Amino acid sequence: MRLKFLGTGAAGGVPVYGCTCLVCRAAQRDNSLGRKPCSVLIETAEESILVDGGLPDLGRRFPAGSLTRIFLTHYHMDHVQGLFQLRWGCNTLMPVHGPADQHGCADLFNHPGILDFSPVMQAFETKAFGSLDVTPVPLNHSKMTLGYCFQDDTIRIAYLCDTAGLPPETRRFLKKWQPDHIVLDCTHPPQESQPANHNDFTLALRLAADFTSARICLTHISHSFDVWLHHHQDVLPPHMQIATDGMELLPEGVFVAAAGQTVNVIPTAK
Amino acid sequence: MRLKFLGTGAAGGVPVYGCTCLVCRAAQRDNSLGRKPCSVLIETAEESILVDGGLPDLGRRFPAGSLTRIFLTHYHMDHVQGLFQLRWGCNTLMPVHGPADQHGCADLFNHPGILDFSPVMQAFETKAFGSLDVTPVPLNHSKMTLGYCFQDDTIRIAYLCDTAGLPPETRRFLKKWQPDHIVLDCTHPPQESQPANHNDFTLALRLAADFTSARICLTHISHSFDVWLHHHQDVLPPHMQIATDGMELLPEGVFVAAAGQTVNVIPTAK
Repeated sequence: MRLKFLGTGAAGGVPVYGCTCLVCRAAQRDNSLGRKPCSVLIETAEESILVDGGLPDLGRRFPAGSLTRIFLTHYHMDHVQGLFQLRWGCNTLMPVHGPADQHGCADLFNHPGILDFSPVMQAFETKAFGSLDVTPVPLNHSKMTLGYCFQDDTIRIAYLCDTAGLPPETRRFLKKWQPDHIVLDCTHPPQESQPANHNDFTLALRLAADFTSARICLTHISHSFDVWLHHHQDVLPPHMQIATDGMELLPEGVFVAAAGQTVNVIPTAK
Repeated sequence: MRLKFLGTGAAGGVPVYGCTCLVCRAAQRDNSLGRKPCSVLIETAEESILVDGGLPDLGRRFPAGSLTRIFLTHYHMDHVQGLFQLRWGCNTLMPVHGPADQHGCADLFNHPGILDFSPVMQAFETKAFGSLDVTPVPLNHSKMTLGYCFQDDTIRIAYLCDTAGLPPETRRFLKKWQPDHIVLDCTHPPQESQPANHNDFTLALRLAADFTSARICLTHISHSFDVWLHHHQDVLPPHMQIATDGMELLPEGVFVAAAGQTVNVIPTAK
């Protein structure tokens, strides 16, 4: 399978509106340093799956027929806002697989339009989509949230966002499942007290230490974590990296930045 | 005052996702024929006011400090969706003047961030913003909705969207107020039965006949109305025109299309 990060930002994105931190100023000057709403595209020979619908330009990015389905981790606005215009489409029906959250978001369930929310995902029930097996796992968040474990013949990727740590049953499943890659929420720099809804870097390191045979790629990054990373450039263990918008997982199993993406151009703080 | 149409589309926009009608196909080929979420920018010497927040890229269009305030007609998603990311900004506070709708939209009121929803607008209570007087008027829609009457020393513009016809008290106010321009919801081509939430062309013509001294500019246009107009090119009375994205009201009191905008290039249907 192929995986591409379409967005890697926390709810406010990067640049944050009105912010003058060094990361937001750099992203205002250079779009390729920005972070859009957190989402990935998973592609196999048979499937083209969007995970989360927070990007506002889904219709332009994915002409009708180019996506086979959408998976939702949860119904917070930054993960579903792009669906509100998409739903008023025609001549097509889009399966949207999400958690069994009876509230959804705003009026999405009352006025679904072309979106078919009926294929609800149940934790630990594996479903096959062509050669791709998908197993949802519960996460720790302020709204009912699922991670997704994607497996084909060659690779196992766990997408775990949004979460603070992991529920014990999800940790047990993953220890047995043995992911090659974990894409992990890491919204915050190290916090004084343990955050409730998203990982800080301390929680992410703890999880990485628990899964030393997996490569860990951090996503849902806030501008404040980006600033912290800028001042702590050697803190990542060898099997951990930071996702950027447009980054892709190559068949060799390594993540590479998008072509043309600017890297490391943030000026050193004085 | 200056007025610019930032978006002139109905909820699904133009092109509608998956649609193959001649209007949507033309807009897929040429962005300048598209219709974004319905909104206008009103500018005076002192104020820069965004009317409705449905555009998804508000932060990029309006760097912090460039808008003085936002007016909302109502809290349907296509009129507020751009506020959900904007709210997580910093170093700034954005006054948002809307109707007294206790529900708002999704979690906007519970998590307003930098958005200050406290300046609620009351029907027929005129407020001054520098040299600009603004009077809200009730409209007929499925959710509590206000139109806004803008007046400076030289011109009176009534912005009436979303609405199906007008409440009697709003019609009485407007007859006395005598607008120079009415920007009017006209979502649908002529319908067999009278629509409940948006004007069709029949209702818009009826209102235009009631306000013959005003120029009428139609907005909140659906692709089906655009297709109908393509086949009925001489139906507009002399004092009525169709808004397009980027169109501006010149100081001379006439609306002109945006520079570089393609006009009348939709191929004739066979």
